[in-house]
Amino acid sequence: MTNTIIDSSLRTVEWKDNKVVMIDQTKLPNQLIFVTYDDYNQVADAIRTLVVRGAPAIGVSGAFGLALASLQSKATTKEQLISDLEKARKILYETRPTAVNLKWGLDKIMQVANSGDAVEQIKQSIINEAKKMADEDIQINKTMGKYGSVLFDNNDTIMTHCNAGALATVAYGTALGVIRATRESGKNIKVIATETRPIQQGSRLTAFELKHDGFDVSLIPDTAVGYSMANGLVNKVVVGADRIVRTGHVFNKIGTYQVATMAKQHGIPFYVAAPLSTFDMTSDAKDVIIEMRKGTEVTGIGDKKTAPDDINVINPAFDMTPPELISGIITEKGVAKPPYEESIKKLFQAN
Amino acid sequence: MTNTIIDSSLRTVEWKDNKVVMIDQTKLPNQLIFVTYDDYNQVADAIRTLVVRGAPAIGVSGAFGLALASLQSKATTKEQLISDLEKARKILYETRPTAVNLKWGLDKIMQVANSGDAVEQIKQSIINEAKKMADEDIQINKTMGKYGSVLFDNNDTIMTHCNAGALATVAYGTALGVIRATRESGKNIKVIATETRPIQQGSRLTAFELKHDGFDVSLIPDTAVGYSMANGLVNKVVVGADRIVRTGHVFNKIGTYQVATMAKQHGIPFYVAAPLSTFDMTSDAKDVIIEMRKGTEVTGIGDKKTAPDDINVINPAFDMTPPELISGIITEKGVAKPPYEESIKKLFQAN
Repeated sequence: MTNTIIDSSLRTVEWKDNKVVMIDQTKLPNQLIFVTYDDYNQVADAIRTLVVRGAPAIGVSGAFGLALASLQSKATTKEQLISDLEKARKILYETRPTAVNLKWGLDKIMQVANSGDAVEQIKQSIINEAKKMADEDIQINKTMGKYGSVLFDNNDTIMTHCNAGALATVAYGTALGVIRATRESGKNIKVIATETRPIQQGSRLTAFELKHDGFDVSLIPDTAVGYSMANGLVNKVVVGADRIVRTGHVFNKIGTYQVATMAKQHGIPFYVAAPLSTFDMTSDAKDVIIEMRKGTEVTGIGDKKTAPDDINVINPAFDMTPPELISGIITEKGVAKPPYEESIKKLFQAN
Repeated sequence: MTNTIIDSSLRTVEWKDNKVVMIDQTKLPNQLIFVTYDDYNQVADAIRTLVVRGAPAIGVSGAFGLALASLQSKATTKEQLISDLEKARKILYETRPTAVNLKWGLDKIMQVANSGDAVEQIKQSIINEAKKMADEDIQINKTMGKYGSVLFDNNDTIMTHCNAGALATVAYGTALGVIRATRESGKNIKVIATETRPIQQGSRLTAFELKHDGFDVSLIPDTAVGYSMANGLVNKVVVGADRIVRTGHVFNKIGTYQVATMAKQHGIPFYVAAPLSTFDMTSDAKDVIIEMRKGTEVTGIGDKKTAPDDINVINPAFDMTPPELISGIITEKGVAKPPYEESIKKLFQAN
């Protein structure tokens, strides 16, 4: 593993010269450092310690981890190789067992491995598959961006919440991918990023990656969403999603619901950008369990304590935005508009 | 000046044995320390360095500062005493020249001084007047609390934003005074305090003072207001105000407007508690200038940097909540209800 500080366009995770290169997101926003790994155990550590985060980015990182494991293997038979890969798969999987995309990425690689014959051919197939998964993630984001960009106008100021950006995906991003595509389509736009307490993905990641890419971006505390809208500073909103159910209820980072409500109050269009892999077509909105996180995320920042000892904290990770607040859901298959139950179904039929 | 850590009910500023005793709010929420001053220059430093903050608390602190100056004076004639007091008044005033209440407190004491005759009699009148101002502040808060408490029910969970508490006044508080009075009326209540970024008065001060007084208080990040209301965790809201104009538009800590909007969306009554001295009966809402504060309040906490270098920041100190979102305005003369132009005028006529 080597550390180098270089300036480049943001690719969260990449396969390069038979090694895995990642942005160390724990160093953001203060330093943009790319780390290079040649051992799958290092990739497992990276996932565990949040060097890389964001569902699509983690899925592809797991796949690249298995690709490294295949290169590290001294196996001479397929059986030995599969056994080495299974060992690596287990270590990689256990880093963040609740991340759906991680399982998806690892399973896809194991499938490729199992369907191969000779050791060297399997190794090559694994590398090719992992690279393909990374490329597909970018392709999906770019397609989503194209569909989304037509919804935004020249001179718009677009508000976004949390980080649905390059740094949550392999590159380009979902909500921020739409913002990138809008600029690429020749429109002049500005962005307002909310801080997104308690984890501050907005100030640490979104403000960082948009500034890095030369956008005109302003940061606001989460308390200033209403002020910004009431004072005409915002024309549109676009956010990502962690889960969307078939009725169009969107589960996303805590605070999304109130941003959507304020947008509705001010007649500001509110869009969600997410790939079809984010849709959960079987659960009802009321059955989705919202993760409660530890209070220490709210009672201090770093070593700085900002609340009294032993204070009770309510710290939900997500909230639910109902479909009546959403102007459109941007996917790689097109934009779903209300009524969502119908339009979402159509997106999947077109698939 | 001596420091002692003692446990007592929260009195922000007090006259005791010819000295001024204050809670050092810069040490909260980690330590409850009372500092004792016998020199008006120390009081000036305390106001300047935010040992004491909150408009009513600063006004009374200034008055107590002049009381100390009178005791420190070696004057033998009224003219000499007034000259010493004028010197002190200038030093105290320049600590926070934009604070309206500070000027009010100092002017009131100078008026008492000027209307006296003999040196010793003037000194005693000044001390009496300053103590009276402190007592009146508490009395106003308690009266406001009584009028407000009838609006809250047994088993209510009350949300509040920022700190309109004992720590912003001499004691008891405005919005938190209403909460205290509700408990004193025998009702069992819980409180949810919003963190209130960027300065975090909610976590640092409100959570602290309510926990200190034995309330069942929970802290939430500002992003969780919508979640809390959508999930039935909140029955009522009460906040303070920095300025209320005659049409019932309320200027208060940034974030108040979106708390009020979310409350309306969920049919949750939203109350404002403020003394008549907070009303500005001459300005129009559109003419009130909202103070923009420095970006470093948002880009880091303490030494911890949470945003990229040189990021543009929009950091308004206040926002405006329109009257249609407000269920009632609680004052020491009663509760104004819509239509506010009429009901506010009546409060002043009753004065």
